[in-house]
Amino acid sequence: MVATVEVPHMNAGDGETSYANNSLLQRVVISKARPIMEETIENMFSTTIFPGCFNVADLGCSSGPNTLLVLSEILDIIHEMCRQVNRKTPEFQMFLNDLPGNDFNTIFKSLPAFYKQRKLNGSSSKSCFIAGVPGSFYGRLFPSTSVHFMHSSYSLHWLSEVPENLDLNNKRNIYMAKSSPSCVYQVYLEQFQRDFSLFLSLRSEELVCSGRILLTFLGRSIADPSSKDCCYLWELLTKSLLELVDEGLIEEAEVDSFNLPYYTPYENEVREIVLKQGSFHLDKLEIFGVNWDPSGDVSNKRCVFNKYSSGQNVANCIRAVAEPMLANHFGDFIIDPLFAKYATHVAEHLAVEKTKHVNIVISLTKK
Amino acid sequence: MVATVEVPHMNAGDGETSYANNSLLQRVVISKARPIMEETIENMFSTTIFPGCFNVADLGCSSGPNTLLVLSEILDIIHEMCRQVNRKTPEFQMFLNDLPGNDFNTIFKSLPAFYKQRKLNGSSSKSCFIAGVPGSFYGRLFPSTSVHFMHSSYSLHWLSEVPENLDLNNKRNIYMAKSSPSCVYQVYLEQFQRDFSLFLSLRSEELVCSGRILLTFLGRSIADPSSKDCCYLWELLTKSLLELVDEGLIEEAEVDSFNLPYYTPYENEVREIVLKQGSFHLDKLEIFGVNWDPSGDVSNKRCVFNKYSSGQNVANCIRAVAEPMLANHFGDFIIDPLFAKYATHVAEHLAVEKTKHVNIVISLTKK
Repeated sequence: MVATVEVPHMNAGDGETSYANNSLLQRVVISKARPIMEETIENMFSTTIFPGCFNVADLGCSSGPNTLLVLSEILDIIHEMCRQVNRKTPEFQMFLNDLPGNDFNTIFKSLPAFYKQRKLNGSSSKSCFIAGVPGSFYGRLFPSTSVHFMHSSYSLHWLSEVPENLDLNNKRNIYMAKSSPSCVYQVYLEQFQRDFSLFLSLRSEELVCSGRILLTFLGRSIADPSSKDCCYLWELLTKSLLELVDEGLIEEAEVDSFNLPYYTPYENEVREIVLKQGSFHLDKLEIFGVNWDPSGDVSNKRCVFNKYSSGQNVANCIRAVAEPMLANHFGDFIIDPLFAKYATHVAEHLAVEKTKHVNIVISLTKK
Repeated sequence: MVATVEVPHMNAGDGETSYANNSLLQRVVISKARPIMEETIENMFSTTIFPGCFNVADLGCSSGPNTLLVLSEILDIIHEMCRQVNRKTPEFQMFLNDLPGNDFNTIFKSLPAFYKQRKLNGSSSKSCFIAGVPGSFYGRLFPSTSVHFMHSSYSLHWLSEVPENLDLNNKRNIYMAKSSPSCVYQVYLEQFQRDFSLFLSLRSEELVCSGRILLTFLGRSIADPSSKDCCYLWELLTKSLLELVDEGLIEEAEVDSFNLPYYTPYENEVREIVLKQGSFHLDKLEIFGVNWDPSGDVSNKRCVFNKYSSGQNVANCIRAVAEPMLANHFGDFIIDPLFAKYATHVAEHLAVEKTKHVNIVISLTKK
């Protein structure tokens, strides 16, 4: 397990700035990927032997309302399939995985209510057994050939570690940016190639024969790694950090030495790694966009766009995800002023240009 | 899941009064039961087919140094057996179970160090996969026929709920006591019969054929349910509570309405339930004593007995286990004065009579 994998965990608890209260983006993404999840599971059941116990893993489950939403969706899909063909629903063993620092206690405390609710909805909760599995998905998590279906949403863009030697080459940036030299794009890509390839080979050891994986992660729609649709979100955060440097709150060297363990691949980069790693068939790759402020995707279309509330929504979302990493490097004290500036910059940007996150969803079958 | 099963969880965290820092008694009990664990596992491996992945569950694992101690012992026993017969060590999937309110986060955060330590000791950690399973063991926890070996130490004396109708019949007591009417002994026994029988039938559904269970729990060595060796510990706590009543801190009615969801069976009661429930062979039942103050069992025999430090040790141990229940019923404010009085009463008692907890350990094979 790499030391740095401890860093990218979400804001814990259920307070105002917690991930649990700022995970609408991730919820919208899960709902947009649902048709592909249905297709994957249906296809799996139509082509393989129906197991007595269906073992499912959600990798990078985090701690919030989306954690159990994914489980519910999987259970609902299979219940409905079984109902249609008049088959007995199997037992389920559901493994919720995230890093050891994830707030599993909060998930576990919500389970009695989850079981109760499912029972009220007519699904037996007796046959669904939920377990928490702490550990990095860049290491082995499960016994060999023991899992039927793995799911991961919004986790695989997190690398196992920050690529090496970025400090000297990516000054005044925290991720790939327009102003980064080309070697920065290269080391980020290489780190992703190593990590994603390792991820696939570990999962292929853990999956049963013909087992499936459904992965959704942030990517980019343009081959150019400095394209706005993957980097600009972070360039605005860099801009906010550099303003804190100007104000004397932090040192410029601290910004130089901070880089995100994160990568947003282009679809062909993903295809190539799957092909080269060799353990999986790539059944499907789809791309879809979701607004930076996802409340625009779900709320009344006629509601008036307010750049400030949208800016704040985006800032809250990024804060919930990045605060532990930023606080760890720069100190807690920068968080409030940093995200106040960031919300304003995002607001100004969205007033000029409605911007979307690019999401890649892939469905894989173990060979 | 019964509502009241939420109550008996240990003191969380790692502070002075936490269970993690006051679990020496439980550690001594685990070490005394180890020979029977070795025998059980060796017997299992010599009579059944060696699985590729050995699935183990620890029920009521709590959160403290003993949690991973049990796993270590099981791993060590099997590693040593495999070494002796020159066999490849299997993979392990280890399920740590406790109530949803248990502090799983603290266990999970200690896992990277645990894996590292085992690697340093020469055992591969790659093949050991640890998962947390929140839920009451008075409900199903695992898929059917999926676990090879189950272990539970110092949990099964906790009932699923307080027996009904005790309020009116067990006044000025909090557990079975010398002064309890016989109907109190009867309802406690019946609750234990129902709970232990349910426990066995649930586990028999989850265990593989010929799977084993090793259970250690508090009991009594004398058939009489009011015997000192199971009740007196709690009678001293009742005495302390009644002093708080005299001082006006709490109402007598509050003491009347508080009863422990706890039972310390006589060995024949255990034998009868196993026989009547019918899913298991009782391979072994042993009884052993451990001093109320277990530091007397482990430290230098020649050290001078100090009744006050022993009284304090026992009070800390009982506080770590019972504080959440007591605080929930009487309020947080009674905890410090209550356990100050209790430590003194225990000290005075131990000065007169060295007293032991009676422990029952049983080894079962699924028919």
